[in-house]
Amino acid sequence: MFGSLHFETPISPRSVVKILMKIDLAFTPFELEKKELEGKAVVVIDSLRATSTMLTAFENECAGFIPVATIEEARELSANLKDPNILLGGERGARPLEGFHVGNSPRDYSPGKVRGKVVIMTTTNGTRALVAAREAEEVFIGAFLNLSAVCRRLKESGRDVIIACSGEKNLFCLEDFVCGGGMIACLSADGNSLVMTDAARAAKILYEHFSPDICAMLEGSEWGQYLESIGLGEDVRICAQIDSSCFVPVYRDGKVSLDR
Amino acid sequence: MFGSLHFETPISPRSVVKILMKIDLAFTPFELEKKELEGKAVVVIDSLRATSTMLTAFENECAGFIPVATIEEARELSANLKDPNILLGGERGARPLEGFHVGNSPRDYSPGKVRGKVVIMTTTNGTRALVAAREAEEVFIGAFLNLSAVCRRLKESGRDVIIACSGEKNLFCLEDFVCGGGMIACLSADGNSLVMTDAARAAKILYEHFSPDICAMLEGSEWGQYLESIGLGEDVRICAQIDSSCFVPVYRDGKVSLDR
Repeated sequence: MFGSLHFETPISPRSVVKILMKIDLAFTPFELEKKELEGKAVVVIDSLRATSTMLTAFENECAGFIPVATIEEARELSANLKDPNILLGGERGARPLEGFHVGNSPRDYSPGKVRGKVVIMTTTNGTRALVAAREAEEVFIGAFLNLSAVCRRLKESGRDVIIACSGEKNLFCLEDFVCGGGMIACLSADGNSLVMTDAARAAKILYEHFSPDICAMLEGSEWGQYLESIGLGEDVRICAQIDSSCFVPVYRDGKVSLDR
Repeated sequence: MFGSLHFETPISPRSVVKILMKIDLAFTPFELEKKELEGKAVVVIDSLRATSTMLTAFENECAGFIPVATIEEARELSANLKDPNILLGGERGARPLEGFHVGNSPRDYSPGKVRGKVVIMTTTNGTRALVAAREAEEVFIGAFLNLSAVCRRLKESGRDVIIACSGEKNLFCLEDFVCGGGMIACLSADGNSLVMTDAARAAKILYEHFSPDICAMLEGSEWGQYLESIGLGEDVRICAQIDSSCFVPVYRDGKVSLDR
């Protein structure tokens, strides 16, 4: 029965092309924690809404973010720093937190509110993904808003890449997966040879499926529908504005900044 | 700034169509453990190779399987039962285990070896997914080999469904995701109204992408390539034989059987 088996080591087409970059994707912070991050570039995506909100804030001259895991931690840090340039920001269940200056809506982060300020930020999923990424060589903030800019930065870095989807409470969410797939499609668009894991390949295929109307994908996603149902549909449409920002914020030493 | 917001609760198209079935998908046993299983039907998929191997064994008149988590547990149970009709089966790293009668290759489970026998089975991923599914109302064994048969059984049951991908050590694997997507596509093909989670929608899209050549998808997947590299490519092609079996084995009280 085993007579027809071939035991030669198969020659993979991967071994004969120039390899520019290996790309992997983690669906959730739980998956990210299980991956080897040393020497790699990680892009953390929480497209609805944390990373889109951060980009909007930077566009409006926010000075930076300090992501923390819990509401208590945010309050304590704010109390200890006693700095008028510090704001408290974040959400639970997509809703603003009592006593906080700003929520997790990009519309909260207007120039008048955030120019020159540092925001201590706590969100359900995005913060968890950032913390899980901290052992990587470089950690970038990604969303549809800076899709092309992130890819330019990744190409400059030349490192192997892990796309880190924030997910929803450590479960899959469509919008981060598709956004990551968009980055992978962009990185491979100019003839680069990418070595993609199965997860990265799947994300690219999903992006190509949804690319004719990313806004509709976001609106139709579970989280997009939830945001719409609580009156935050406008946020979803803001988060669909592909390449509206050229910034690629960096997460380093517990802070998110523009690294300029 | 919030003046343009609409606060009406949006009417979802889901609320006006007849809902036949809710379908969700878990990428890994870790995800499955986080889901509410009560009253639901779960399909456990480990298409390369455990569930495909079980189906092959049942086609060859195997009496059933007792999935256990560890090699030691398998040996102890076998020693305690002292039954000549009991075989030890399974793998680690896709390779057979010392002193075991059969591995995890469908080609091991020939009629001469398994007819009338019960196999105590331990595999890396499939067993973990079965155990994680045990609180569900019904647990079915699924693979490409019985894709249509599983869907018929799910329609008969009328329960909400969770497709449980075994994954690879609690990480995403393409082949189980695409197989689950095939089941979702099949369930929706005859005009059924399915309520799909984002994960289920994504799986269906991936299946539709790969459906022209499922064998190529399996051969190109990370695990398929690994199996090929250790001389087990023939197994991959066996696992691609869509609808070669009409059986839908059931996992109940710690055993997998045909439930006839």
